[in-house]
Amino acid sequence: MKVEDVRLKGFKSYTPVKQVKKLLSSKIKKKSAETIKTTTALGRIVAENIKSPVNIPSFSRSAMDGYAVKAENTFGASQRNPKRLKVIDKININEISEKRVQDNEAIQIPTGGAIPNGANAVIKLEEVKRTNNWIEIYFPVHPFKNVSRKGEDVKKGQVIIQAGDIIRPQEIALLLASNIMEISVTKKPTVALIATGSELIEIGNEPQIGQIVETNTYTLYNMCELYGAFPTRLGIVKDDEFSLRKILEKALQYDIVVFTGGSSVGEHDLIPYILNNLEKSEMLVHGIAMRPGSPTAIAIIQGTPVFCLPGFPVAAMTSFEVFVVYTIRKILGARELDPRPVIKAVLTRQIPSHLGRCDYVRVKVLYDEENNRYLAEPLRTAGSGIISSAVRAMGVIEIPENSEGYEKNSEVNVKLYLPR
Amino acid sequence: MKVEDVRLKGFKSYTPVKQVKKLLSSKIKKKSAETIKTTTALGRIVAENIKSPVNIPSFSRSAMDGYAVKAENTFGASQRNPKRLKVIDKININEISEKRVQDNEAIQIPTGGAIPNGANAVIKLEEVKRTNNWIEIYFPVHPFKNVSRKGEDVKKGQVIIQAGDIIRPQEIALLLASNIMEISVTKKPTVALIATGSELIEIGNEPQIGQIVETNTYTLYNMCELYGAFPTRLGIVKDDEFSLRKILEKALQYDIVVFTGGSSVGEHDLIPYILNNLEKSEMLVHGIAMRPGSPTAIAIIQGTPVFCLPGFPVAAMTSFEVFVVYTIRKILGARELDPRPVIKAVLTRQIPSHLGRCDYVRVKVLYDEENNRYLAEPLRTAGSGIISSAVRAMGVIEIPENSEGYEKNSEVNVKLYLPR
Repeated sequence: MKVEDVRLKGFKSYTPVKQVKKLLSSKIKKKSAETIKTTTALGRIVAENIKSPVNIPSFSRSAMDGYAVKAENTFGASQRNPKRLKVIDKININEISEKRVQDNEAIQIPTGGAIPNGANAVIKLEEVKRTNNWIEIYFPVHPFKNVSRKGEDVKKGQVIIQAGDIIRPQEIALLLASNIMEISVTKKPTVALIATGSELIEIGNEPQIGQIVETNTYTLYNMCELYGAFPTRLGIVKDDEFSLRKILEKALQYDIVVFTGGSSVGEHDLIPYILNNLEKSEMLVHGIAMRPGSPTAIAIIQGTPVFCLPGFPVAAMTSFEVFVVYTIRKILGARELDPRPVIKAVLTRQIPSHLGRCDYVRVKVLYDEENNRYLAEPLRTAGSGIISSAVRAMGVIEIPENSEGYEKNSEVNVKLYLPR
Repeated sequence: MKVEDVRLKGFKSYTPVKQVKKLLSSKIKKKSAETIKTTTALGRIVAENIKSPVNIPSFSRSAMDGYAVKAENTFGASQRNPKRLKVIDKININEISEKRVQDNEAIQIPTGGAIPNGANAVIKLEEVKRTNNWIEIYFPVHPFKNVSRKGEDVKKGQVIIQAGDIIRPQEIALLLASNIMEISVTKKPTVALIATGSELIEIGNEPQIGQIVETNTYTLYNMCELYGAFPTRLGIVKDDEFSLRKILEKALQYDIVVFTGGSSVGEHDLIPYILNNLEKSEMLVHGIAMRPGSPTAIAIIQGTPVFCLPGFPVAAMTSFEVFVVYTIRKILGARELDPRPVIKAVLTRQIPSHLGRCDYVRVKVLYDEENNRYLAEPLRTAGSGIISSAVRAMGVIEIPENSEGYEKNSEVNVKLYLPR
């Protein structure tokens, strides 16, 4: 498929965001898996369902410091009519009693201790009165009271974590408790980041008139890290066809290619033109019904998604968040395609929007303690070249194509930026 | 200060969570700063306000591909009555025109190009009709239309990032654009993690009856990483006074010390007893009005906070989330003391709670598309030993001391677990 050359003409039409995602989705394949140590798996996406090979706990144990008893012996106990049991043994943690609890007997047991044979409940230490080898019990306990039964947490063979789940600290704990020392996770997609533009200079240099310090590849590098990809900066390339073709060839060794700049309608906006005319390239879209980010182009070259994002920093970020993060998470096979948390907030000011276009509005978020709610304050200086607006913002509101905007005081969804 | 020895007696009273935080807060000092490369600063906390030494952009530039004009020359232009301007030059990106725009003249300019002398606005390429060296303009533009003025994003000397802010991708972009290649961030607090209990065995071994695979230090290690601290596992220590005193001495070289296990009322729960009787130790609390996590003890030893958390995995996690994360973020000087995002959700089932106790209830979170709201489903098997309950949970509801719980269908705040 080809798209129209828009250079010096302007876009004739814009494709809706949803449709672009659908197109993308049909082209993206989940990445293959790799085996890593469980202890290093924080933030990784699980490749296949994981079953526990063991019971947790592996034996029935006491949940409290107390006395292991036969629950039946406590039935009928009351403050007025206490039951008396004889303490026949005391085990320490990590010990097993050789004795068996018989009727009206008890064995003293610590939290985590193995329930002795014959016993089926534990009475808390502080709930009995002990005198020499006898305890008095003032209320009944039901069978398995204060007992963590074998397999109560996890049963042998049970699926404990599913494909697509992200590994958090608690997943690491459960895996290690299950004696699973290695797990299969999807490989991190590799992302090549290229900035184009003859006006760009490397960071650390002072720009002369006409020059711009290139920062997009650094922003996107860090976004890749946040969202689970493995980025590489291929650097700055000038706006000439030869250099662009050369870097593209190199970039196609990565799972995802991201260009910034050179995606619009100027005569030096060559990348969509190059992609359009490359053999084996399938152009998915050029020009998307969104703001910022409309001059975005996406092609698939031999299975590899190639994104041409606008050069303006906020437009590049936005388009990356909407399409590249989506692609990264699809390749990872993650259940959560957009990890940014969504909160509800009340708008402090109306936001107008155009029908037929998806608007992404950066907002400050304030907590209104009195009314236990969040307030969202749209940022005024929101030009897509204004990096400081993204710095002042705590999140972004998405106004869909079918909306003309939101009134002041209406409740809206805010996607919060990470990390926090 | 000392607290009562609770071994074999049980807690007489529990201190409210808020009061414990207040006590802690008065004892914690912000950590000193270190200078790091801006490009490696993702997730770090800024130590002091940062001012930009430059204007961004550093010169007035075009925000569009188009023609630089005098706005005044376009006033009165219409479809019927177009204005004609003569194109006297064309600059490429990174070039400066040697010509000056005079009345009824224009210079062709790319996006990002330096606005030529004499011009004060840009008309988009696709909005004019060009014939040879002339363009026709069909509507007026106001001064500075499509112009990014020098200093528009950031003014030289302006504070761009404040002490306590976290570095996200956009902060890195703005810092680099400001030619700030290094920044001052608070050092990550170091955390010593120690598991106590003679029943504990190292991961990778099969537990015999009475033995437990130690996983708490791994859970907490990863939580430290999530919340900005630098953890070290000091390993497993048996429940004897000599070993515990020895490891405590070693652990006091870290900024924060965290023990798990041995914090309750059993006779082998020695750590609070040791802390209580140590010279230069100030015991802040033992026994907190919370569930899970009530048998938590906190002491300050020569300025170092020492936490004794319960050994049950979910209780350890919860107490860590409430007190240790708070301490880490205070030491970091972070504005956001609890980075977990809070969403509103509707309860699918009532949750009872006791007055005077803060309950932490793990929930599944489901999205109710029809009503555009989240549902929170409390997990039933929520014993504090059940690691799998934390794995099934997406977040936690905090029921404060003054509440007897929440009704079904009431709207509650859910703190979402990270990462997502």
